[in-house]
Formats: sequence, C-alpha cells, structure tokens
Amino acid sequence: MSPREDVATEPLPSTDGYRQPDVDVPALSALLDGKYADVRRLARDNLVAHADLLTDAETLDWTAYRERVKDVVLALAQTGQTGFGFAEAYGGGGDIGASVAAFETLAFGDLSVMVKVGVQFGLFGGAIAQLGTKRHHDAYLRDIASGALLGCFAMTETGHGSNVQALQTIARYDPATEEFVITTPDDAARKDYIGNAALHAELAVVFAQLEVAGEQHGVHAFVVPLRRDGEVLPGVRIGDCGAKIGLNGVDNGRIWFDNVRVPRAALLNQFADVSAEGIYSSPIENPNRRFFTMLGTLVQGRVSVGGAGINASKVALTVAVRYADRRRQFSIDDSAQEQLLLDYGQHQRRLLPLLAHTYALHFAQEVLTEQLHAVFSAPPDNPADEHTRRELESRAAGTKALGTWHASRTIQECREACGGAGYLSANRFAALRADTDVFTTFEGDNHVLLQLVAKGLLTDYAGAFEDLDQLEMVRMVTGMAVETILEKTAVHTLFERIRDALPGGDQWDSEAGLLDSRYHQAMLRFREEHQLSGVARRLKSATGSGLSSGEAFSRVQPHVMALAHSHVERLVLDAFVDKYRALPDGDLKATIGLLCDLHALSVIEADRGWFIEHGRLSVARSKAITRQVDDLCRKVRPIAVDLVDAFGVPREMLRAEELLG
Amino acid sequence: MSPREDVATEPLPSTDGYRQPDVDVPALSALLDGKYADVRRLARDNLVAHADLLTDAETLDWTAYRERVKDVVLALAQTGQTGFGFAEAYGGGGDIGASVAAFETLAFGDLSVMVKVGVQFGLFGGAIAQLGTKRHHDAYLRDIASGALLGCFAMTETGHGSNVQALQTIARYDPATEEFVITTPDDAARKDYIGNAALHAELAVVFAQLEVAGEQHGVHAFVVPLRRDGEVLPGVRIGDCGAKIGLNGVDNGRIWFDNVRVPRAALLNQFADVSAEGIYSSPIENPNRRFFTMLGTLVQGRVSVGGAGINASKVALTVAVRYADRRRQFSIDDSAQEQLLLDYGQHQRRLLPLLAHTYALHFAQEVLTEQLHAVFSAPPDNPADEHTRRELESRAAGTKALGTWHASRTIQECREACGGAGYLSANRFAALRADTDVFTTFEGDNHVLLQLVAKGLLTDYAGAFEDLDQLEMVRMVTGMAVETILEKTAVHTLFERIRDALPGGDQWDSEAGLLDSRYHQAMLRFREEHQLSGVARRLKSATGSGLSSGEAFSRVQPHVMALAHSHVERLVLDAFVDKYRALPDGDLKATIGLLCDLHALSVIEADRGWFIEHGRLSVARSKAITRQVDDLCRKVRPIAVDLVDAFGVPREMLRAEELLG
Repeated sequence: MSPREDVATEPLPSTDGYRQPDVDVPALSALLDGKYADVRRLARDNLVAHADLLTDAETLDWTAYRERVKDVVLALAQTGQTGFGFAEAYGGGGDIGASVAAFETLAFGDLSVMVKVGVQFGLFGGAIAQLGTKRHHDAYLRDIASGALLGCFAMTETGHGSNVQALQTIARYDPATEEFVITTPDDAARKDYIGNAALHAELAVVFAQLEVAGEQHGVHAFVVPLRRDGEVLPGVRIGDCGAKIGLNGVDNGRIWFDNVRVPRAALLNQFADVSAEGIYSSPIENPNRRFFTMLGTLVQGRVSVGGAGINASKVALTVAVRYADRRRQFSIDDSAQEQLLLDYGQHQRRLLPLLAHTYALHFAQEVLTEQLHAVFSAPPDNPADEHTRRELESRAAGTKALGTWHASRTIQECREACGGAGYLSANRFAALRADTDVFTTFEGDNHVLLQLVAKGLLTDYAGAFEDLDQLEMVRMVTGMAVETILEKTAVHTLFERIRDALPGGDQWDSEAGLLDSRYHQAMLRFREEHQLSGVARRLKSATGSGLSSGEAFSRVQPHVMALAHSHVERLVLDAFVDKYRALPDGDLKATIGLLCDLHALSVIEADRGWFIEHGRLSVARSKAITRQVDDLCRKVRPIAVDLVDAFGVPREMLRAEELLG
Repeated sequence: MSPREDVATEPLPSTDGYRQPDVDVPALSALLDGKYADVRRLARDNLVAHADLLTDAETLDWTAYRERVKDVVLALAQTGQTGFGFAEAYGGGGDIGASVAAFETLAFGDLSVMVKVGVQFGLFGGAIAQLGTKRHHDAYLRDIASGALLGCFAMTETGHGSNVQALQTIARYDPATEEFVITTPDDAARKDYIGNAALHAELAVVFAQLEVAGEQHGVHAFVVPLRRDGEVLPGVRIGDCGAKIGLNGVDNGRIWFDNVRVPRAALLNQFADVSAEGIYSSPIENPNRRFFTMLGTLVQGRVSVGGAGINASKVALTVAVRYADRRRQFSIDDSAQEQLLLDYGQHQRRLLPLLAHTYALHFAQEVLTEQLHAVFSAPPDNPADEHTRRELESRAAGTKALGTWHASRTIQECREACGGAGYLSANRFAALRADTDVFTTFEGDNHVLLQLVAKGLLTDYAGAFEDLDQLEMVRMVTGMAVETILEKTAVHTLFERIRDALPGGDQWDSEAGLLDSRYHQAMLRFREEHQLSGVARRLKSATGSGLSSGEAFSRVQPHVMALAHSHVERLVLDAFVDKYRALPDGDLKATIGLLCDLHALSVIEADRGWFIEHGRLSVARSKAITRQVDDLCRKVRPIAVDLVDAFGVPREMLRAEELLG
C-alpha cells in the first residue's frame, strides 16, 4: 500500500514557477541510446525484420518454435549483431560495450531468441574466449561467432546452482592416455537447465572438479563434444527439461557423462594447466582466488541479463502508459465523458515511479557497461587491477539483482494496469512475464548475488579496520574464505564529503531542499554506511553469543541483504544524478531532473520507516516527501507518453493493437 | 527490502519459557476445514481422481485441453460437488457455504476447471437463480446444475469492465411482438473475455441497457440463446479471445448481437419487469439502488475468487516450504554438510510471514463465507437487512482484493525460492502463476473493489455526521450517487473500546505487550479510523480548493485506497484473533497464536513508517517489532512443514517429484 499521511489541511504543493518541459523525443532517445546508437539501431531493425516471431510463438508447437528460434538466432549472427564481443581476428566486432548494447536491445522482442543468443555467443563463446587460450580460440571462435558451431555452457547441476564451488561432476586426468575422464557420479551431479543442450549444442563447456593424481584442484572448465551431425555421442546422455514457465523456444536440457574421455587440450587453460605427465600448475596460487578469478571473467553474462530486465520493463511500460492515456473508465463529475486512467492519482502512483526507476536503472546500466568495457578492453600489458575487477563484479551482481526484480515488478504492475485486456497474449504481457521470470534466478540467484555484494563491502570494511576478529566474521558471512587483498575504500569518506556539500552542516538532513539531488545522495549514503557498520557490529556480537556459526549467520543474514540492497540503490542514484548534472541546461535536463527527483524520493519514501528510525528523517519531512512524490507524479503525467516513446521500442514489438489503437 | 535496524548490541530476544508446540496435523487440518470438512473431502477426492489433468494440460493442444476441461467439469457435476449452491428442488445441495467450500478447494488443482465451474454454476447459474424468478428457475436450473445446459455470463464489454453501469449493449422492448431486441452498437460494446462463450455455452445471461418506449432504465439481465446443437444462432457473432497468460482450458470469447430478438420472459425479472404493453415496473424505485441490489446478489463470485486465491497460495507454500526443508546449499562453517535453505534467516523471512498471512486470510475467508451463507439462507419472510448486505458486499470485495494479491505475491516468492527448478512446469508454479494472475482483475478489479470498500466506510462516516457537505464529497469519491440509507456505525466507538481494554490508558501503544493481540488489533483500528477521518477532511479541503472534481478526486484517491486496505487488514486480523481466542488452551492454540502474532506484527512492520509518522509507534518499539518478527520466524521454522501439511493439499496436486522427493 502506498504510504499516506492524513493531515488534510496542509497546502497543496506549490507549482509556482514550474514550467512543464517540452520533450524532444528524438533527443531523449539519443541520450538513452548513448554511444551505441548505431548498434541499437541495427538490433531494432533486426527485431522488426523478425517481428512475426512474436505471434508465431503462440501458434507453433514446441518443436517448431525451438527450430524457429534457432533459425532467427543464426540469421542475427549473419548481420553481425551477435558477434560484437569477439575479436576482429575471429570475425567479431571487438567491442564489448557494443555486444551488451546489442544484446539488451533484443529484450524488446522474443526473449527465447535473446536467451539463446546469450547462451551461444555470451556464455558458451565467452567461456571459450575468456577461459581458453589461443589453441581454443583458433579452433572454435570463428565458427562460434558465425553460428556454424553451436554450444552450451554446462555449469549448473541439479544439486548445486548457487554454490558453484561444490559442483560434483568429476574430470580425472589419466596420464596414460593424456586425457581427462568426465564423469557424472550421481543424478544430483547431472548438468541441469542447460540452454541449447536438449537439441542444438554440438559442444559443451563443462565445469567439473579437476582431479590429478588423486589430488583435487577445484572447479575447472573443459570443452566436451556432445553431438556429431546431431547425434549424441557415446557416453553422453541428454534429457529434455520439458515445459517451463516461459522461454520455451530455448531447448534446456540435462546432461550425464559416463566416463567421457577428452584430450588434455580440452582443458580451458587460461588460469591453470595440466602437463602431459600430470603436473598441475597455475599462475594463481590460492585455489579460492583462482576460482573467483575464473568466474569473474564471465561477468558479462550478469551485465547482459540485468540490461535485458531493464529493457523488458520498457516494453511493458510503453504499453501500459500509452493505454492509460487512451482508456477511459468512470466519469468523476456529471459529465458524460469518462476519465482517462492516467488522470487518476492512484494510476499515476502505480506507473510513474516505475517509469522513473526504469530511467535510473538504464543510466546505471550504462555506467556498468562502460566499466565492463574498460576492464575487458584494457591492453594486456596494462590490465585492470584486482580492485577494479572486484568493483565491476559487485556492481554487475547488484545491478542484475535490482534490474531483474524491477522487471518482474514492473511487468506485473503494467499487466494489472491493463486489466482483462492485459491478460490476453496478444497484448504482450503473457510472454514478457513468463519469459523474464527466471531472470531473477539465472546468471546468479538474486539473493545470492546480493550476498556477494555485501561480501565485497564487508571485506573492504574489515580491511579498513585491519582487525583479525572482523575478518573472521566476514569469513563467516560470506561462507567462504576471504581474500587477503583488503584495502581502504572511499566508503567512509563519502558521507563526510556529502555532508560538507550540503547546507546545514549536521542539520543537512532537515535543512536541505527536498528536490536537492545532493540531499537524495546523502540520504542513501547515510543509510548504506550505517547499515555497513551495523552489520559488522552484529557479526561481532553474534560470534560472541555462543550460537553456532550457522545460526549466527542466519540471524545476521537479513541485515546483510538490506545492506547490499542499499548499496546498489545508492550506485543507481549516483549514476542517474551524474547523468543529470552533466547535461547542459534546457528542457532535456529539466525532464531528466523531474525523473531523477521522482526516482530518488520514491526510493526514500519506500524505506522511510528506516530513515525515521535512524534519526535522519523527521515525521514532518517524511510526510512532505510523500506529498512531493504525488506532485512529481502529476508533473510527469503530461509528458509520460513522450517518456515511454523515447525508449524507442519498435511499434511492431508492442503488438497490443486493440490496447494501443 | 526487509526493514532492518542496526543497533548490534541489543540482547537477542529471550526464548525463556518458550516451549515449541507439538503440532497435531490432523487436528489442525480439521480446524482449517471447519464445518465443511466433508465437502472439502469430496472435492479433494475428485481432484485426485482427475490428477492426470495437471500433466495433460502441458501436452494437450489448445482444443483438446478445452474439451478435456469441459469433460472434467461435467464429471464433477455428476458427483454433486458443483451443485451445492442450487436449491434441492432443482437437484442442488441447498447450501451456499458448502458451495464456496467446494469451489475454493478446486484451487488446489487445475484452475481452468475451477474457473469453468465458476462460470457455469456460479456466474451463469447464480445469475439465473438470483436475478430470475420461478419461470426461469423451472426452465433452466435443473439442467444447469447437472451440466446438461451450459451457459455464460455476458457482462463485461471491451469498452467497459469496471464501470458496469456504463455498458453499451442495448435491449430495446418491442411491444408489437412482445420481444426484447438485443443489439451491440459498436465494437467497444461487444461482450469480451466471456468464459464458456467461445465454444460451449448454449445460453447467455446478457447484461444490457434496457430501453422501453424510448426511456432508459439502466442495466438489466436477459437470457439469450447463443447456440443450438453447437451451431451459433443467427444474429449472434462469436469470436475467440485466443491465447491468454493462463487459464487456457477456458474458452473465453467475444459476442456481438445484431438485433437478436428474445421473448419478454427472457428478462430476469426478480427486481424489475416490463409488462406486455411496455410498462416498466420495479419494487425498487431508485435506479441506482436497483442496480446495486441486482449486482449485490452476485456477490458469491467475489467470495469464491478470494477463497481460490488463498487456496492457490497454499499449494505454492506447500511446495516451497517442503523444498526448503530438504534442499541444502552452501556450508556455513567448515563442515562438509551444507545448510538447509529453511535454516537461513532470509529464507525464513521470505516464506514464513506469507505462511502466517495465508492462515489469517483462511480464517477471514471462513467468516466471510459464514456471512454469505447467513444472508443467502435467510428465510424469505425475514431477509437480511440492507446494512448486513452492504457489509457483506464490502467484506467480499476487500477479502477478494487482499486474497488475490496475496496469491500473486506468494506464488511468485515461492517460485523464486525454488530457484531454477521452480521454473520448470513439472514443479507446479508455471500453472499456478499463470492461471491465478487474472484473479486480481476479474470479478472486479482489485483497485476498483477497494474503492467500493472505501465508499462504504465514507458513506457510514458521512451518515454519522449528517452533514450534507460531507455527503457531497462522498458522492465525488464514489463517482456515483450515494444511497441515502446512512447510519451511524460502530467504527468510532471501536477504538475507544480497545483502548479501554488495554493497560496504559492513553499510553496503550507504548505499554502493551508486543505479543498482546489486543495491541495488534488496537494498532490496526487506530490506523483505520485515523485514515477514515483524514480522507473525509481531505475531501472537504479539496472541494474548496478550486480544483476540478476530477483533479480533486485524483489527489485524494491514493488515500482512499490506503484507507480501504487498512480496513480490510483490520477485518482479517480480527477474524484470526477471534479464531485464536475461541480455541481451548493447548498446543493447537499455541500454534495458532504463534501464527497470529507473526501475521499481526509483520503487517504492522510493513507499515511502520505510517505508525511512526502518526505517533503510535516509537522508534525503539518499531525496532523491537522487527526483532520479534525475526524471532517468531525462528519459532515457526521447526513446525513449518507441519503447518503446510495441515493445508491438506493432496500429494497428487503438488507434482514436483524432484523437488519434494
């Protein structure tokens, strides 16, 4: 329920001096599309070219739908849209940022196509590129980029999804034949939910516990053939995952390996190798660090899924906002004319903060993509340092979690806001809801990802204290040993800097203007820092309480999750504010400013209980924020259609002929 | 995000003196099943008998699935399960309460079957029974109850769903032939989303604007034949709504009427009639009151959908809680054994308050069903009075809204809590999510229903003041003229009574025990009353502000919605507390008490910002409530599996072989 205050006598918020900005839709679209406008245009054109897939998806049977999706994926590959991430030497575009932009734009269309693209070119191709070396690149990358060689990414098992380190598939080195022997010891260790596995993959990148001469070396990746000319190879057994909530154009499968032998060169040996004689070696000594470094190279998948969620939200909002600007129901006074849905205060409250959040997440995703591009485009002689990589991984995890939850929430609200019509598949929400649902789970379960974010914050925090007890606690939180590469971060100085920037000194929280973006940032930074030190103190207290570490962690965990959530919300706001501040004065800036205020204040409003509890929000100010959110909704309402049009979702992707006229 | 407080040094909540109750699962099941245990047993047995439909629904094509669903509905009719609502004279069971119990139990199974049952026996049969007279009953009810005559309920039009009074279909009386002429003036007036229409209905109850001798008499219902021997009749055109998000076993259709003539007797004339000469008459003079009285007789549909949502939630929780009690992921300490999901604090926070809310809503639904039964079973010479009927309608609207939103939220959370496995159709969430999604929209859009609830509260409130200005405002809120049957209600005295019952006098809110159910009730009553008077004051202020009535209403609307939400949450809590108090001391009472506390405190926690803002919750107490909710989750955790088992969802309805073992 929306929070409401109920002093009926306060004056209505003043709109003195407010001038509604003129929205130049093409200019706003250009701002959203950013430096990859050309890439996004190519992706949009490709979507339109295959627009009939949206209707075919409803009528084709399962088998035909899967084949159709494969054909579209291969057609996309021919246009170059799916190859931006590969080196030019292998027929790719050599531009990581462009590959994310191209991928996330696919979220406007059939999401089975998008996910199959992600599996083939992102997960499978990305693993070969990042974990393999030149021999693998030369052998496979050109055919992967062209779609001539289809593959899958066989990491998750039935028994272990989130806890990748505990996978049970075994790869035992046999020095006699210089081969690895891949084995699935039991059904819990079968590879599960693997996209492309049920039908189309010829090759798999298989993650397995490497065992050399009786010694365990942890999870490593291997190239394992699954099929030749469509026939499953001996020793490999493949099952079909069957019907799913959505994404039924993707052939998810299960794989069992019965002593499948692959040559020594099948090990993707960027970070570790086994010699012919069976000597294991790695440039990274610490096995944990090695594992997380390997996984870290696969971060693009998370960046991509987060972006996909954000873009799927744009489709839903475009339909719901345009419908609400046409649909009338109930006349309020005695006039015969019924009122437009979007003129109802409650309807504005339902849709417009979600619209503002979508803009915020879009620009946060842009910053994330830039960081990804910078890290993965760094010259080999000057690679990104470990801290920068960790920061990227944390931001990717957090943005993926918030972006995909936002998608679930937004699509659902938009469906309901279109009533019974929204329930018809022709009106687009059926596929959007069903297909995006798993985004909160795959590429890292959102809850696990937020723990990863918190782990990073606590590691830095403990490092700042250089306190071994704290470090112990952090170990407990993260459920895995923590790297000793700890360093002071800027977290503790952030808040002081903001306080200095705002009027009022220690009274900044009560004297700053409600529409001052420095105030919004200071509030979210205060919350994050307060929760960070609070979690650390709780951990200390819990370790001394005599509880088992399992129970102690269980008690602190919800606080850990809240901290991570606050951190990511702060990153999102900072990205949005930075974008706003960098714009030249004018109507475009005023438009972004409105959305930024609406985003920030509705985030604060949603957690106003916490801010009041922690002395940073007075009751009067809290009520004033609710009034401001109402007022901002009214200001956004007249430009709402322009704001969704600027997303540039092609008309053909919206369908909804009856809703949109 | 869950709210967290962060003073790490407070003592952990004491569990001194707490003894975990032993749960007698059959006894708890008996408490849940209540007086209709036999009816529910019949319904469960029928579900098990047709359990293979759950898997067939995935493999059958559209056409075959619809026929299969129809066959199951007809088979159910043969067992008597679908006929409890009809009089014994027509082969029914003559027990309204039993018909709701039988219906809502169907929510454990395939929901297309449930909805088709609802359309045929509830909406279509119910309209004939409630709006028709003996001639209609004699002509149709026996065949409707047996399933020999299938029909549909043609109310909603493309252009008007929520605003039923504005329907555009016309029924013009032609005295020359003593017939009504039914016409669809344009596409916006076509009947839309009508269950049973696309394929199976032979007859429709059609809602249309009655016009007699050029005079409009508002919406009335007519029996109109659609098909004979499966062939659509002349003048009738029927389209198929096509694929939907879910419920694809139900044949929803669109209907156009081109001057279709039906005899004068086709008017369902319980509340109005037209003589052969064309004289309109009604025992209810006020047209508005007549309309709402007619609609009010159809309230059972809302009661049924709310119950269905609550029961669908039980299926999802049963799967997710049992899975979380088996599935291990990550080891917290250095032991090899990974930790059960349900031992994680965050996982408890995700699932266990939803479990408590489900119990609360179950018992609130029981109270509602009793009221429904009492009103509709009252002897003709001593019918329920108007106030009682209004109260029933309001409670039905509110419970439907909260129960169906709860279903959407719970099923989604449970799906995510089962990870990737939850995404597979075999694990039940696919159908649950897709099929229940429209519950928030059909049988009254939830937002519109909450406005109906608020309308009732404001009408009573204005009546208490006997202030014409207030009445004007209420007219504006409700968007329709308000009945003048106003009366003082108990609302204003409720709060005083509670305050007297609690220790502490005016300090009750700070001195009562956190686990005192009188405290919980007093908090929710305080909120409701405060919001009620606040909305009234806002309306007064808005009318004097110079805003148009549309804009004024738009501004007040979110407060109106919050008020209605608070009112219904109060009713739900009261029902749960009453159930608890009536139990004899013992483990069963202790079990219900735990759930009641968890439900109440997590409702208060979720709106703690409001309570702090309005001076009824101190910061310290707010933090203590969060700790109590955590503590209650830990206490519920060991008995959680028993609590879901007591729902009595047949094992065959859960599927999920791999999740549940």
